[in-house]
Amino acid sequence: MNMAVRSKVWIEIDGEVVLSQGKASLLEAIQETGSLQKAADRMGMSYRHAWGIIQKMEHRSRKKLVITKQGRNGGGSVLTPEARDWLLRFNKFHDGLRELVDGRFNSAFGDIDLSG
Amino acid sequence: MNMAVRSKVWIEIDGEVVLSQGKASLLEAIQETGSLQKAADRMGMSYRHAWGIIQKMEHRSRKKLVITKQGRNGGGSVLTPEARDWLLRFNKFHDGLRELVDGRFNSAFGDIDLSG
Repeated sequence: MNMAVRSKVWIEIDGEVVLSQGKASLLEAIQETGSLQKAADRMGMSYRHAWGIIQKMEHRSRKKLVITKQGRNGGGSVLTPEARDWLLRFNKFHDGLRELVDGRFNSAFGDIDLSG
Repeated sequence: MNMAVRSKVWIEIDGEVVLSQGKASLLEAIQETGSLQKAADRMGMSYRHAWGIIQKMEHRSRKKLVITKQGRNGGGSVLTPEARDWLLRFNKFHDGLRELVDGRFNSAFGDIDLSG
């Protein structure tokens, strides 16, 4: 039997989720692909769903996060400086958190006997 | 606008949840009330639902966690030594985790400007 700790963290503004691991991954995918469609594909969601997530994030934070450009070659989507800043902050917050949670878990449960 | 971090932690055995904040609260309520019915009431759930949660925890961990006694005065439920041990461990793991997550959040997001 394998025992493991799991955790989730997210950020709310006035009680509504504005940033989570999933939302940060979507922003990251937009940054890396330059396209909301490609980012949605990578996340395994529809364009419409991805766009809805971004719109809710923008509404809740009252910030413009993604700029979509129309173009002869299909246009593209880019993060605003504000969205890039949030993504950096979230990654800074999130990095190392797992190790920290794992460390606490191991010190509390590391010696438990599951064989009984 | 008020920005805050939220988190959830739980423990899995072979990919199935055996302990979480809610499950630990249920064990704690049984310990404090000596009754599964009163514990369920306190948690705002039915007796049947509370009993189902305990049964799943016992099945997944292969440990007896709650002993229910029949009695002329209604009987009662008590935690096994194993369940008390798990509860102590979970509380040790969980206590202070919020402060830790809050601290990381404040250092990453504390200076953000939400007024724009």
